[in-house]
Amino acid sequence: MTFRNPAMKCRACEQRASIHMPQHKLIFCREHFLEWMLAQTARFIKKYQMFPPGARLLAAVSGGKDSLSLWDALWRLGCAVDGLYLHLGIGGEAGYSDASEQAARRFAGERGLALYVIPVQQAYGESVPQMAARTHRGRLRPCSVCGLVKRYLMNRYALEHGYDALVTGHNLDDEVGVLYGNVLAWQMDLLRRQAPVLQGGEGFVRKAKPFCRFYERETAAYALLRGIDYIEDECPFAEGSTLLENKEALNRLESLHPGMKLHFYSGFLNARAQMFGSSGTGLAEGEESGGMKRCPTCGQPTQAAGKCAWCKLVNP
Amino acid sequence: MTFRNPAMKCRACEQRASIHMPQHKLIFCREHFLEWMLAQTARFIKKYQMFPPGARLLAAVSGGKDSLSLWDALWRLGCAVDGLYLHLGIGGEAGYSDASEQAARRFAGERGLALYVIPVQQAYGESVPQMAARTHRGRLRPCSVCGLVKRYLMNRYALEHGYDALVTGHNLDDEVGVLYGNVLAWQMDLLRRQAPVLQGGEGFVRKAKPFCRFYERETAAYALLRGIDYIEDECPFAEGSTLLENKEALNRLESLHPGMKLHFYSGFLNARAQMFGSSGTGLAEGEESGGMKRCPTCGQPTQAAGKCAWCKLVNP
Repeated sequence: MTFRNPAMKCRACEQRASIHMPQHKLIFCREHFLEWMLAQTARFIKKYQMFPPGARLLAAVSGGKDSLSLWDALWRLGCAVDGLYLHLGIGGEAGYSDASEQAARRFAGERGLALYVIPVQQAYGESVPQMAARTHRGRLRPCSVCGLVKRYLMNRYALEHGYDALVTGHNLDDEVGVLYGNVLAWQMDLLRRQAPVLQGGEGFVRKAKPFCRFYERETAAYALLRGIDYIEDECPFAEGSTLLENKEALNRLESLHPGMKLHFYSGFLNARAQMFGSSGTGLAEGEESGGMKRCPTCGQPTQAAGKCAWCKLVNP
Repeated sequence: MTFRNPAMKCRACEQRASIHMPQHKLIFCREHFLEWMLAQTARFIKKYQMFPPGARLLAAVSGGKDSLSLWDALWRLGCAVDGLYLHLGIGGEAGYSDASEQAARRFAGERGLALYVIPVQQAYGESVPQMAARTHRGRLRPCSVCGLVKRYLMNRYALEHGYDALVTGHNLDDEVGVLYGNVLAWQMDLLRRQAPVLQGGEGFVRKAKPFCRFYERETAAYALLRGIDYIEDECPFAEGSTLLENKEALNRLESLHPGMKLHFYSGFLNARAQMFGSSGTGLAEGEESGGMKRCPTCGQPTQAAGKCAWCKLVNP
């Protein structure tokens, strides 16, 4: 995608176009790009049967371009969608988490949307980096502990407040970055679980990724053109992660073969059906694990008998 | 693998070691490295049930380090193995094909082994680059036509002369390069067919790759330490190919994560069993295509009715 070529004309209205997407062989003016993003979002929701019209949605909001753009798009499409922000305590006072919370609050305030905030340190006595520093799981970097905290708290909040689905802002670059890592290691269990929608059940809320087929450059352009004021910084702990390494490798491939990321992802979704005998568009999280157990402490689902990973983390 | 660290000692004999393979956490002197290569080759042949003791083998020989090292190793392991060289007519007189043929002939002569040569231009009126220049299939580069010519002639020669298996020198770098390309495009048919051994039947000879788990650096070291005089040049048409591009990407990954190529390959072999319900170690080439037809002109197997791809190429 580029913002050059002033002589080129919008596919939809013949006006001067500023948004060129060679990966889709499309070119749009500002207005029609934004319209296309909404139409595509609606199309993906339907195509992958993410949730029915009228579903009560909870958006996982980080304050970055993806989650805020997704929340904006779903709101404009007429969905009933609240936001949930987890303050993870990253970067100390006036740091990454504080700034992200402000961006999320500002966004919600401007649109009159409901935003719920869970301040992890206040609620559970420790920030995520503090939890990580204390545990074997977090000894190298806090990302694994952070993922556990987010998955647990978001799922539980969505279930306890009766939402039909949790929606997350994962874009195509996120999805192929994870896919690439899972394929290089042939992590069949993780490949089985990677899909635009997870059906839910057995203590898991339904989860959907309506932006999973948008390039990161497209969600960034959406936020920019909508004037969404988002946090541009990556989480400080992401630097040097395998996911970023994988994304760089994929960026090299995409620059050699434009459209490669989308082919890789859509090819995978077709292959999933052959590999796992499922439709490739939905899967119950508990189902494939052969039945989940319940944590005796918190009542949430867990794979093994005894305390779940969350309770082991916060009440060791 | 490095040839440094003169202070380090061979794992097997405590002598000064010159061959260090961090990807296997092994270090050997010259003698024990060569011994290890032979033992590993024998182990892979048995592990993947490539062929039984006493099988009559035909080695596909290119004159490069992999095929000559393989032929040498099988000969030293006591296999009955002849060589087949296809002179493809690449590089004109005293060019790539001529030089490769000389290397193969010299190797066979020194060891008293039987080498058969098919001179493609003499036998079929055109060299492979000439065939490619004439056809749509070869319009960008001759590699696709060359692959067809090699697969057809080698298979036919092996069958007509009663060999039990055709062995090829594909090393780990070759296998993961192809695997990486097939995964990025999710070519499920090609993934299904990629294995250390293809069972044969229905007009196809059994095919085995005894070196499929050796790094390219290992086969190169084997050739060097055995004093095998091989052609170092790549085929001039390989430059800029997708396979070389993929190999470069994998070299970057391997330098970040030593042993990554072997994990990627062995993980795939395990995953194959889950994906395709086969053991991952053998597969009849005709079997999975749902039965082959026979070419009315040459009698060889073909997927569609009518002339096979080879006959269309040489008798259009």
